[in-house]
Amino acid sequence: MKKSLLLFATLASGAALANEGMWMPQQLPEVATQLKAAGLQLAPATLTKLTEFPMGAIVSLGGCSASFVSPQGLVVTNHHCAYGAIARNSTPQNNLLANGFVAKTLADELPGVPGSRVLVTTAVDNVTAKIITPAVAKLNGKARSDAIERNEKTLIAACEKDIGHRCSVPAFYGGLEFYLIKQLEIKDVRLVHAPPEGVGKFGGDTDNWMWPRHTGDYSFLRAYVSRDGKSAEFSKDNVPYVPKHYLRLAKDGVKEGDFVMAVGYPGRTNRHRLPSEVAYTFEWNYPAYVQASGEQLAVIARQTKDSEDKKLKYASQVASINNYYKNRQGMLASYAGSDILARKQSEHAALKAWVNADPARKQLYAADIEQVETLIAERDAQGRRDFLLNYTAPRLLIAARTLYRLANESAKPDVERKLGFQQRDLAPLQSNLAGIDRTYDEAVDKALVANFIAEYLAQPAASRNANFDAALGLKDGMKPADIKALLDTLYRGSKLADKAAREQWLGKKPADFKASKDSFIKAAVAMYDESMKREARDEELNGKIQQSYANYMQAHIAFMHSKGQAVYPDANSTLRVTFGQVAGRADGADGTAWKAFTTVDGVLAKATGSGEFNAPATQLAAIKARNFGNYTLPGTKTVPVDFLATLDITGGNSGSATLNGKGELVGLAFDGTLDTIISDWDFNPVATRSIQLDLRYMLWEMKYVDHANNLLKEMHVE
Amino acid sequence: MKKSLLLFATLASGAALANEGMWMPQQLPEVATQLKAAGLQLAPATLTKLTEFPMGAIVSLGGCSASFVSPQGLVVTNHHCAYGAIARNSTPQNNLLANGFVAKTLADELPGVPGSRVLVTTAVDNVTAKIITPAVAKLNGKARSDAIERNEKTLIAACEKDIGHRCSVPAFYGGLEFYLIKQLEIKDVRLVHAPPEGVGKFGGDTDNWMWPRHTGDYSFLRAYVSRDGKSAEFSKDNVPYVPKHYLRLAKDGVKEGDFVMAVGYPGRTNRHRLPSEVAYTFEWNYPAYVQASGEQLAVIARQTKDSEDKKLKYASQVASINNYYKNRQGMLASYAGSDILARKQSEHAALKAWVNADPARKQLYAADIEQVETLIAERDAQGRRDFLLNYTAPRLLIAARTLYRLANESAKPDVERKLGFQQRDLAPLQSNLAGIDRTYDEAVDKALVANFIAEYLAQPAASRNANFDAALGLKDGMKPADIKALLDTLYRGSKLADKAAREQWLGKKPADFKASKDSFIKAAVAMYDESMKREARDEELNGKIQQSYANYMQAHIAFMHSKGQAVYPDANSTLRVTFGQVAGRADGADGTAWKAFTTVDGVLAKATGSGEFNAPATQLAAIKARNFGNYTLPGTKTVPVDFLATLDITGGNSGSATLNGKGELVGLAFDGTLDTIISDWDFNPVATRSIQLDLRYMLWEMKYVDHANNLLKEMHVE
Repeated sequence: MKKSLLLFATLASGAALANEGMWMPQQLPEVATQLKAAGLQLAPATLTKLTEFPMGAIVSLGGCSASFVSPQGLVVTNHHCAYGAIARNSTPQNNLLANGFVAKTLADELPGVPGSRVLVTTAVDNVTAKIITPAVAKLNGKARSDAIERNEKTLIAACEKDIGHRCSVPAFYGGLEFYLIKQLEIKDVRLVHAPPEGVGKFGGDTDNWMWPRHTGDYSFLRAYVSRDGKSAEFSKDNVPYVPKHYLRLAKDGVKEGDFVMAVGYPGRTNRHRLPSEVAYTFEWNYPAYVQASGEQLAVIARQTKDSEDKKLKYASQVASINNYYKNRQGMLASYAGSDILARKQSEHAALKAWVNADPARKQLYAADIEQVETLIAERDAQGRRDFLLNYTAPRLLIAARTLYRLANESAKPDVERKLGFQQRDLAPLQSNLAGIDRTYDEAVDKALVANFIAEYLAQPAASRNANFDAALGLKDGMKPADIKALLDTLYRGSKLADKAAREQWLGKKPADFKASKDSFIKAAVAMYDESMKREARDEELNGKIQQSYANYMQAHIAFMHSKGQAVYPDANSTLRVTFGQVAGRADGADGTAWKAFTTVDGVLAKATGSGEFNAPATQLAAIKARNFGNYTLPGTKTVPVDFLATLDITGGNSGSATLNGKGELVGLAFDGTLDTIISDWDFNPVATRSIQLDLRYMLWEMKYVDHANNLLKEMHVE
Repeated sequence: MKKSLLLFATLASGAALANEGMWMPQQLPEVATQLKAAGLQLAPATLTKLTEFPMGAIVSLGGCSASFVSPQGLVVTNHHCAYGAIARNSTPQNNLLANGFVAKTLADELPGVPGSRVLVTTAVDNVTAKIITPAVAKLNGKARSDAIERNEKTLIAACEKDIGHRCSVPAFYGGLEFYLIKQLEIKDVRLVHAPPEGVGKFGGDTDNWMWPRHTGDYSFLRAYVSRDGKSAEFSKDNVPYVPKHYLRLAKDGVKEGDFVMAVGYPGRTNRHRLPSEVAYTFEWNYPAYVQASGEQLAVIARQTKDSEDKKLKYASQVASINNYYKNRQGMLASYAGSDILARKQSEHAALKAWVNADPARKQLYAADIEQVETLIAERDAQGRRDFLLNYTAPRLLIAARTLYRLANESAKPDVERKLGFQQRDLAPLQSNLAGIDRTYDEAVDKALVANFIAEYLAQPAASRNANFDAALGLKDGMKPADIKALLDTLYRGSKLADKAAREQWLGKKPADFKASKDSFIKAAVAMYDESMKREARDEELNGKIQQSYANYMQAHIAFMHSKGQAVYPDANSTLRVTFGQVAGRADGADGTAWKAFTTVDGVLAKATGSGEFNAPATQLAAIKARNFGNYTLPGTKTVPVDFLATLDITGGNSGSATLNGKGELVGLAFDGTLDTIISDWDFNPVATRSIQLDLRYMLWEMKYVDHANNLLKEMHVE
């Protein structure tokens, strides 16, 4: 009987369609019917209230998502989101990455990476009318770009008068709308608990983006504030932050077919893009990116192979390149076997036909729909031309250019400075400059630059940047040995590899830079005027694009609404909700189907005792002992590890709380599957699945293997 | 709608239980109800008639199964069953293994490996009463063994008076019953068609015993006889054999849930074994075998790595070792996670309780059930002691011992000679001696022997065979260099590496051997008397075991019958029928389920362009062109490659015709799955699946890729 129940569940799963939609919380009432039908037990309106339960418990780590799980500011997120903090506290003698870490008391908790943040969204307001004022609406080109930026800075400055908050004005619907996002910025973030890497990163790059998956991708951080409850930099005197709300852990785990939703900060999707943007991306940009990434990985591997120190310095960059390398290859493979472009083109043709069918619509939109294509073609041509330039600059030259730009901007009143170079940006800029020490090796950097300069020089002179060539001394027909000699001279001529030397330049005047003999500072100065011209040219183009694109998007939304379809904005690192159900998939690798859950038996099967599948001996022993407590998957005698769901997530959703219909925590989203990541561009409703850590695996590991009993108690488990 | 049909099929599959039972054809009426219920449309009684359709079309290749598929003696079997014939006709210039082969006319067909046979079973008679006559029943020990062998030889001799037939008297139910099997022996077997190895062996050792599988494991042979229709050795004048029956190819392929049956010659299963036999096998014999196999593979790899010629010579042996190496490891893995032994013990205890519950039964069986355990413990102890001896003998010493034994046996009247050394055995003995040239390299052989002699010598002297030590000159404390020197002298002292030299010894008298200075002949002579003593000792033990084991088996069968269960005999390379259905499996690798079919899309996904996954470019192009004709799997737009079924098969079933309910060919059985091969000992009714080539893949490949149109026409396809 159990068997047939299980099979029925499989049937249900096969029928499950992935649920497209990364909804802004305030949009949820629009899909309230679907939410209730899917199994949400909370009132949909509850989810629109950012400072109430459960949304008040959801936080951003900047690039990752997370949530509060105790009244003492305990935060749960993915292992790969806390990776930097774990690595930073690891030494060869006390390797927390390898061995894991449990702080048994608050005093044992370890500092995070400088600059790490817990960001709690407290307000989201549509400020479109304040950005595109009637006056701005009349502007075009650079004047329009400048006015938009000025209005953004004004709103941000006003918002950030509330000390301890960070504000931003991201664009939605490709620049059609703007929202002012206000976030409480917690600056003292500490590492509380991480399982060994053999659990938290089990499967490594091999299993990344894959199912079946057996990664225990969780870690715990804690948010600290000053004794009076304010945002404060790290201090021994700080105390745990008391969040307004925290998530309760579900007593019963999920089973196949159950409603789930994920709440977090998805980074970027491109579902409303024009056909020409699709073509440029898949037929030029991604292939070029994959090519360049492969070269980067090969150069770094060659240069670091004999040095553990160099390997560690580049580990994080290698992980990141690998992640996108595999992601982009997966997208390209899906694109190659698809009719995406043809479909996009026919949808776009349908939009045009709809617009042209009505004189008023035609008057409103037709010109911009044509115009935007021309503008984007111009931007794409620029992108192609500048592609290799992104790989040819020595890391310290980039730092020099940032420092010189900062000196120039600092000469202006704060409100007139470029976004990113204002007073409020100094701390992150300083962290970045300091961080170079931990992630830079001269020989590796030089080898990377030499590789790409050789390719760059192989282009016709007309495709190159004469100013860049002149600033570095690049000439036609240089051979590898010439390039090497030139780079040796350049690197030797700079002191910026030294942290103190870099920091000395903070606060210096433009004249100081102009007087410098440092090779990279000189090059930065030599490139400045031309780069300002390029920036002005880009702003001119962007101003035009913003205007046309917003109007195209308005037509697109109107067209969708005319067909009765709600439209959510593409992801832009702001808070979103996606809902669906726990579900396997009828088609896995050829000859297989995907079940909704993996189990610890799969960990045992995959464990190799080393490398990417190095499950800890203590864990393997615990699995073999089959001491599984209450953490088994009903209908089985084993612990679920990860599960599939029809949720619509993307990069940035990592660490997102996955909640059941009551808003209780049941898992953490951490990945998608390679054969459907093209859903970022073209949603595949049949096959798209998100991968979640099952909370039962985390709790079992914490209780039976890592003995993190203090945390279980803090979360009211036990 | 298609989707839900598909899902329903998945549901059905999950519910399917594997059908235990390798039924002797004459037993099928016992399970007629189940057969009809499962979907057999033929009358079950039809399958008991070996010379009628469809059984008359089923043949043995000796170690593999096959079937006639045309009125001109065309035989279809697995690629791996025709491997020797393909390899033998391959040269570096014309590599049929790599490129495949299609004979466009009869004249193009190529000779098979010498000694290859097509065997058509024409009669199966229960001769138990003629083997265990009342007189034999009174005997015990060696006298009993000798009498049984004498009776067997008498029956065989009488049976083989029908020229062109080969007869044998295999034991069933562990020696409880004996059947005289009569087979038409076709000796001229030619290679007709094989796809490239990149199709026929796609996936190689990596995919062997695995699902999902994408191997196109088929090839075609043709049976030839003399112009007057008699069995004859290869001759240009021979003509295709006209079989009494041949299989029709099904017009409609199978789908999930369909009835299928496989008819063939399964080699060996051990499902009726005693608990002590299970323990010995899994706790001693298989682990020792795996250890030794790993060493053999390592030594051969090391010794052949720089020579293509040596690699080719050992390719077949390596394939065979690898096959069992993986098989035994799979069995051991299943055993380690199981309660098989405990269950066997409790079943055995239940048998004993049932026997002892009735005075008559107790009188009949109780003593033998106890006695057989003691005898088997004795045999196992011997097996442990002699284990390494199986690996320490130089190949040419084995040949010398065979030749000397033949000389001794030949001194007796034919009927008194040991089975295997009679007149009827001379041809195969000669083939074997000749075959050494194609599969032997002195350096490789010496390295293998040196490896195992070192281990053998590390045992205490009491565990060794003093006679063997003396014959070879092995002494306590020999170091590797000493062993090497000894072997160098031994190998140098023999001419048996030369084929003519080996063949010279055929027909020589024992005195000639005694006078020889050839080192291996001398060693064979030195070992002879002791080996005869050992053989006599073994026969004494075997005679006792046969008596007790037969009686234990009779009790076991009676016990099973008392519970209403039909009992089929363990596989023993005789003709059997297994039936079940096409079915995926609810549990595959953790987090996955197995679908019933793989498709050519999986070939595309796995193809790497070299090595084990080297699908031919022509095939990949044809898949990409998606020119699939009528060969698609309903509900999909692609061609099925292999399919899973709940059939009960084992080694020897390779090439077995898989038939639908009408007795039409739908596939060829070729493998089982690693995680359930322990079913050979302990049937797993939930998970056991056989793997079949889907005929649609074969026909598609023949038509669209390899253009074997003449054969398609011959089989009435087109």
